Amino acid sequence: MAGIRTPKPISELKRVMPKAYAQLESIYQTLEKHFRDMQDIEFTIEDQTLYMLQTRNGKRSAAAAVKIACDMVREGLINKEEALMRVSPEQLDQLLHPMIDPKAKVNVLAKGLPASPGAAVGQVVFNAEDAMEGAKKGKKTILVRQETSPEDVGGMAAAEGILTATGGMTSHAAVVARGMGKCCIAGCGAIQIDKGFFSVKDKAGKVIKVKQGDFLTLNGSTGEVILGQAKLVDAELGSDFKQFMSWADAVRRLKVRTNADTPEDSKIAREFGAEGIGLCRTEHMFFGPGRLQPVREMILADDKAAREKALAKLEPLQKGDFKGIFKAMAGLPVTIRLLDPPLHEFLPKEGKEMIKVAKELKISVKELEQKVTQLHEVNPMLGHRGCRLAITYPEMYRMQTKAIFEAACDLAKEGLRVVPEVMIPLVGMMGELTFTKKDVVEVAEEVMKRRKTKIDYLVGTMIEIPRAALIAEELAKEAEFFSFGTNDLTQMAFGFSRDDVGKFLPHYIEQGLLKVDPFVSIDQTGVGKLIEMAVSKGRATKPQLKIGICGEHGGDPSSVEFCHRSKLDYVSCSPFRVPIARLAAAQAVLKEKK
Amino acid sequence: MAGIRTPKPISELKRVMPKAYAQLESIYQTLEKHFRDMQDIEFTIEDQTLYMLQTRNGKRSAAAAVKIACDMVREGLINKEEALMRVSPEQLDQLLHPMIDPKAKVNVLAKGLPASPGAAVGQVVFNAEDAMEGAKKGKKTILVRQETSPEDVGGMAAAEGILTATGGMTSHAAVVARGMGKCCIAGCGAIQIDKGFFSVKDKAGKVIKVKQGDFLTLNGSTGEVILGQAKLVDAELGSDFKQFMSWADAVRRLKVRTNADTPEDSKIAREFGAEGIGLCRTEHMFFGPGRLQPVREMILADDKAAREKALAKLEPLQKGDFKGIFKAMAGLPVTIRLLDPPLHEFLPKEGKEMIKVAKELKISVKELEQKVTQLHEVNPMLGHRGCRLAITYPEMYRMQTKAIFEAACDLAKEGLRVVPEVMIPLVGMMGELTFTKKDVVEVAEEVMKRRKTKIDYLVGTMIEIPRAALIAEELAKEAEFFSFGTNDLTQMAFGFSRDDVGKFLPHYIEQGLLKVDPFVSIDQTGVGKLIEMAVSKGRATKPQLKIGICGEHGGDPSSVEFCHRSKLDYVSCSPFRVPIARLAAAQAVLKEKK
Repeated sequence: MAGIRTPKPISELKRVMPKAYAQLESIYQTLEKHFRDMQDIEFTIEDQTLYMLQTRNGKRSAAAAVKIACDMVREGLINKEEALMRVSPEQLDQLLHPMIDPKAKVNVLAKGLPASPGAAVGQVVFNAEDAMEGAKKGKKTILVRQETSPEDVGGMAAAEGILTATGGMTSHAAVVARGMGKCCIAGCGAIQIDKGFFSVKDKAGKVIKVKQGDFLTLNGSTGEVILGQAKLVDAELGSDFKQFMSWADAVRRLKVRTNADTPEDSKIAREFGAEGIGLCRTEHMFFGPGRLQPVREMILADDKAAREKALAKLEPLQKGDFKGIFKAMAGLPVTIRLLDPPLHEFLPKEGKEMIKVAKELKISVKELEQKVTQLHEVNPMLGHRGCRLAITYPEMYRMQTKAIFEAACDLAKEGLRVVPEVMIPLVGMMGELTFTKKDVVEVAEEVMKRRKTKIDYLVGTMIEIPRAALIAEELAKEAEFFSFGTNDLTQMAFGFSRDDVGKFLPHYIEQGLLKVDPFVSIDQTGVGKLIEMAVSKGRATKPQLKIGICGEHGGDPSSVEFCHRSKLDYVSCSPFRVPIARLAAAQAVLKEKK
Repeated sequence: MAGIRTPKPISELKRVMPKAYAQLESIYQTLEKHFRDMQDIEFTIEDQTLYMLQTRNGKRSAAAAVKIACDMVREGLINKEEALMRVSPEQLDQLLHPMIDPKAKVNVLAKGLPASPGAAVGQVVFNAEDAMEGAKKGKKTILVRQETSPEDVGGMAAAEGILTATGGMTSHAAVVARGMGKCCIAGCGAIQIDKGFFSVKDKAGKVIKVKQGDFLTLNGSTGEVILGQAKLVDAELGSDFKQFMSWADAVRRLKVRTNADTPEDSKIAREFGAEGIGLCRTEHMFFGPGRLQPVREMILADDKAAREKALAKLEPLQKGDFKGIFKAMAGLPVTIRLLDPPLHEFLPKEGKEMIKVAKELKISVKELEQKVTQLHEVNPMLGHRGCRLAITYPEMYRMQTKAIFEAACDLAKEGLRVVPEVMIPLVGMMGELTFTKKDVVEVAEEVMKRRKTKIDYLVGTMIEIPRAALIAEELAKEAEFFSFGTNDLTQMAFGFSRDDVGKFLPHYIEQGLLKVDPFVSIDQTGVGKLIEMAVSKGRATKPQLKIGICGEHGGDPSSVEFCHRSKLDYVSCSPFRVPIARLAAAQAVLKEKK
C-alpha cells in the first residue's frame, strides 16, 4: 500500500532532524487522508523550520496506478468508483503494448508524431515487399516510408513498426497502424529518405545516414526514433487489470465496439472487451491477395456486364471475409460499411507499377493511363466516393450485400447467431439513402428467401457529411441506425483536409487558436453541435434510434465523455483502444454523478 | 396591346365558322380578364362544337414581355406590382447580351453547359497568348481550352467567348466569364482538343476537325457550339426596360451589389444598377501584368524579410487597383476580400513553363520544383488558403490592408467618399477572426493616423465554412458584417468538390435525387439551414449586423428569394446578373404579400 516513500535524502532527514521528520510524517498522513491518494510533497527546511512548497497526487506508471487503486479498494480505503477515477484512460495504453525498458539508455535520432503507441525494434526496410520478404525469413523490420498508401498494408502488417516522413495523426499510416495495434511514428519531417538510406541531422548539425538493414527502435508512445536496438519490456495485463476493468464495465452506460476489418483484429478486440464491431471497412479487403486484380477489372469495365463479371470474382472472396469476421464476433453485432474510397485509390500511380498492372490486366499502358487520368480528382476527399459510387454503379453494393447475407446464411445454418448492420457511407441527402437501402433490402431478402433463412439485420447510415446532420430528422425515417464518421465530419465542418492540415494546424495549436487537434479530440463547440443536432433530430423521428460513433475519436477519452453526454448508444475504436474507451465511458458516468 | 393573335387558321375559322369564332373570342376575353395576361389557347372543333383543351399565359421574348407589361400599366389594365410579376427574372438575361439572330440557320456541332449567356463569333485559338495577340490586331477570337486557370484570364478578357471541354457551371471559366459578362460554354465533353485543332463527332458519327483560325459561334444561353459565323443581334435596353426596373427598385427591400475585381467591371455593374461591391477578389489582381513575378518571389521567400521585400513591390500596384475601384464606385460600399486561394495556384505546373519561370526568378528549376512539390496538396479546396495563410504569414494581409487604406486616404484627400469593408475569408474559428482583425485594424489606424485622414470602414467575415455558421453568435462579437460564401459553403455542407462533381451530379439530377444543381440554386433544405442559423445566431449577438451573400447564388432568382426571406441585407452577383437580382428581389417582396 501507499506510504511515505523514503529515498536517501528523507532517511537522512530522519537521522539528522528527527523533529522535522516527525512533523513531515504527520503532515503527509493528513494530506493523504484528505486527498485520499498518494502525495508528492515538495518542501524545504530553513533554520530547523519546515516549509511546505506544494503537494500533488503522486505520479506513477499505469501498472502501479491500477495496482494501487485495486489495493486501496481491497483494503477498504476507497470504493470502486473512486478507484476508477484514479487511473487516467490515456495511461492504459502503456499496459497494452511492449515498451522501451525505462532503464535503457537510448540515442534519440529524431522525433515525429506518436501515431500509434508501443515500441518496436527491427532492421530498416524502405518498401512493403522487403518487409514481407523479411517476415517470411523471420527477420524483424521497421518499414520506413515517405507516407503509406493502401498498397503498403501487407508490408505494414509484416513489419514490427512503421515510420513515415509526412502525414499527421490521422494519416493512412497512423490509422492503419492503430488498427493493427502496431507501433507507428508519423510525420517525422526531420528524416530525408533517399535511395537505400535515410539521413537526419543530429543536434550538432552532423548528417547521420541510416542504411537499409541498420537497426532502429521506435517509441510510438513518445514519437522518438532511436538508433540501434533498445531493450523492450513486455505488456503486462495482470489480474488487477481485469478486475479494474470489470468495475468500469459495471458502471458505464455506453457500449464499446471496435473498428476491425479482419478476423484477427476482431479476436484481439474481443479479448480487449469489444462488444461488437462498429466499423468494418470493406475496402481494406479489396487489397488482399487475389483481390486487387478483379477490383481493377471492375474499375476498367466499359459497361455494366463487364463490371458484374469482375464483381462476381470478388463475391466469394468477400463472403469468406465476412464469414471470418461474423465467426470471430459470434453473436455480437457487426456493422459493415459498404465501399467508401474513390476508385482511383485502387489504380497504380507511377510509371513502373503502371506497366506491370497494364500487363496483368492485358490492356495497353495508354488505356490504363487514360483511365487513371479520367478518374483523377482535384479534391478526392469531396469527390466520387461512398454511396455516390453506388448511385452511379449500383452493382457494387449489390455484390457486397449478397456476400454479407450469403455468409450470414451459411453460419446461421451452422447454428451461429449473426447480426449484420449494413452501413451506407457518405450519405448527404435523403435520396441517396432510399436508393441504396432499397437495393440492400432487395438483395438481402432475395438471398434469405432463396436460402430459406431469416437473419435479423439493420440498414443504417453514416452521419459524416454536415448536410446529413442538418436533415437528420428526414434520414431517420429510413435509417435504422446512425453512426457518426467524425473524421470526415471534422474535415468538412472545419474545411480541413486531414492530409494537408500539417502545413498549418501545428501553427494553430502553437498560437493557441486551437486547444487540441480536432482530429484527435472531438471539437465540441463546432462539430459537437452537428452531432447533438443529429441526435436530437434523429430521435425526434425515431425515439429508439440506435446511434454510435465510428471515427477515430471513439478511442479518445474526452470524446468518449462527450459521446456519453450526447446520449449515444456506443462508441467504436481500434482494438487496442477498447480498454481506454471502456474506462473513459465509466468515468463519464461518475463525473455526471458529481 | 395584347389581343387575339390571328395566325392563318384562326382567320380561316372566322370565315368558315363565324359562330364558333365568336364563341372562341368571347371565351378568350373572359380568360384574359380572369388571368389578366395574354393567353395561349388550345382547342378543337368537332361537329361544329368548340372544345377547349387547355389555356396558359402566352410565351414571348423578354423584350416583348417587358414591353407588354409596361403597355398594360400605361393602359391601366394592371398595376406596377402585377407588371413586375409578368416577367421572369431569368428571361432578362436575353436583354443584356447580344444574341444569335433567331432567324439564322445554324449548324450545331456540340452542346455544353450554358455557363455564361449571350453569343459570340470569332476565330478559334487554343491559348491565352493567341487570344491577346489577336485582340491587338483587332481579330475576334474564341478561346478553346480543356479548362481555364487563373493564368488564362488575360486571354479570356481578350477573346469574344470561351469554350472549355471540362468543368461545371461554377468552374473557373464559368465564374470568370460571367463576371466579365462574356459568353462561355463550359464542360463540352464532346470536343477532343488536340494540337492545333479540336475534333467532334457529328450525329452520323463522322469526325469533324475544327482548326485554329476556323470560325466558330457560341450560344452561351443554350450551350450550343456552332460551326461558322452566325448572324448576331445586339442587346436591347430600351426605355421600357429602365422604367420596368425602376418599379422593381421601388418595391424591393434587398440591396443588390456586384462581384467585381476591376474598375471596368465596377462601371458596368453600376450601369446595371449595382449599389456597391459585395465581393472584390484581390487574387485576380495578382495575375495582372507585372504582378505574377513579385507574387512568386513572395511565395519562394525563405523568411519574413524576403517576403516583405516582395510584398513591398506589390503594394503600389494593389493600391492603384483599389483606387480605380473606389473611384468607379464613388461613395458606394466596397467589400474587399483579402487573399483567398492556395499559393500553389500562382506557381507554374508544367515543364516548359517551369523552366521559363525559374529563369525569371533567377533560381534553379530544381528549387522551383521542390517548392511546387512542397506546396502540393491532396485536397487544395480544404487546404492552406484563406485566412489560414494570414495566420502563418501575417505580412500578406498587412500589405493588402495598407494598400486599401493608402488608396482610400488618397481619394479622401481629393474629396471622394470611400467606404471600404475589409472581409476575411475562410474563417472557421473565433481565433482566426480576432488574429486577422487585430492586424487589419492596427494597419488601418496606423495609415489613417499618418495620413491624418479618417475613413469609415468595417471589418467582417465570410461565412463559408460550416463551422463558422455553427459558432456565428461568437463570430458576431468581432465581425462587423457577415457575407455568405455560398459556393464554398455548398461544397463543404454537401462534401462536393465543384471541380469534380461533374462525375456524378448530372446523374443525381437525372435520377431525381436532386432537383437542381446546388451550385446554381441554394439548397434551402441543407445549406439554407446553415444560413438561417448563422443569421439568427449572429443577430442574437448584434441585432443590427449587416449580412449579405457573395456566392454566385446571389444572381439566381430562387436564391435571391430565399435571401429575402432569410432577412439578409443584400445579395451580390456578377455585373450582368444585377438586373436579374433586382427583379427577383422585388418579386420576393410581392410573393410575400400574397
